Amino acid sequence: MKILIIGAYGNIGKIVTPALQQNHEVITAGRNSGDVSVDISSIASLENLFTQTGIVDAVVCTAGDSVTSDLLSMTDEKYRTGVQQKLLAQINLVITGLRYINDNGSFTLISGKMGENPAKGSSGKAVTNGAVNSFVLAAALEMPRGIRINVISPSKITDIATQDLINGYFKSIATSANGEIIRVGYN
Amino acid sequence: MKILIIGAYGNIGKIVTPALQQNHEVITAGRNSGDVSVDISSIASLENLFTQTGIVDAVVCTAGDSVTSDLLSMTDEKYRTGVQQKLLAQINLVITGLRYINDNGSFTLISGKMGENPAKGSSGKAVTNGAVNSFVLAAALEMPRGIRINVISPSKITDIATQDLINGYFKSIATSANGEIIRVGYN
Repeated sequence: MKILIIGAYGNIGKIVTPALQQNHEVITAGRNSGDVSVDISSIASLENLFTQTGIVDAVVCTAGDSVTSDLLSMTDEKYRTGVQQKLLAQINLVITGLRYINDNGSFTLISGKMGENPAKGSSGKAVTNGAVNSFVLAAALEMPRGIRINVISPSKITDIATQDLINGYFKSIATSANGEIIRVGYN
Repeated sequence: MKILIIGAYGNIGKIVTPALQQNHEVITAGRNSGDVSVDISSIASLENLFTQTGIVDAVVCTAGDSVTSDLLSMTDEKYRTGVQQKLLAQINLVITGLRYINDNGSFTLISGKMGENPAKGSSGKAVTNGAVNSFVLAAALEMPRGIRINVISPSKITDIATQDLINGYFKSIATSANGEIIRVGYN
């Protein structure tokens, strides 16, 4: 498979990328590193990304920022960071990517445990991650041409077993899973 | 109790408002109707709202727009409608309202079944409703001064028994419920 991975050298990506490279052609992308530079919060940058990759079989996104802060210090602007950088960014990745993905391809997005099991200080993450999860549940019902979409919802990176994380990505990319929230490291 | 209800004459509000008025002082608000006019997507309008209401015991929001459309017709702009009009609007209602609500008061927000159990064409609603649910789960952990926050997640209005809806709002406003997604009319 020809697989595009965004955030290829981030905390999650640096674990997943080498595992994918063992059996697939992997195009790496990131804000400041990888084969192609991309700012996923920009639709123009996403369009440029796919113009450079051409048609792919799988799109994996392990990137997306949101703000951690006490509730009473959160502001409209801080919530918007996650909405723009992680939620709408990944939605626009799918909308744009649908024109550049093969039949029966797959999208694998990223959310996080705080969407379902929040802790104090996580409301900015919770909003973003909960929304990404719900997007994937909904979008999976309407993906055209046999294309699938799932989301990896990881716990804190320090609570995750490497192989569990890799297995989660393999499940999304290489099985019939569709519309699944793949929880990793929850316990 | 002194209760502020926003969207007092909408599909949900017109059922809930009279029920609350039986035993409480109710201030109604809406975009085009009610005691006070408010556009909840505007922080300035929210500030003006509370300047007019003064301190209240409960804030209920039954308003918030999002877009219904086939996935392949959805755009960044259509997703932003729900984000702005229903998600960030209600978050800003809480942020602003915290300065105008009594100790042990309550916020009752609104999401919808499509956040958890989406149908085709609902991705715009799903994103918004899922995010509001997660916000409430997270914010409930950090509300100050005994203040509580819950969210009513209604199914389609035609699938809801009136008394179930009213009971949901009573549960949020008048019991110790906190951080609950109160599902009404699922099935």
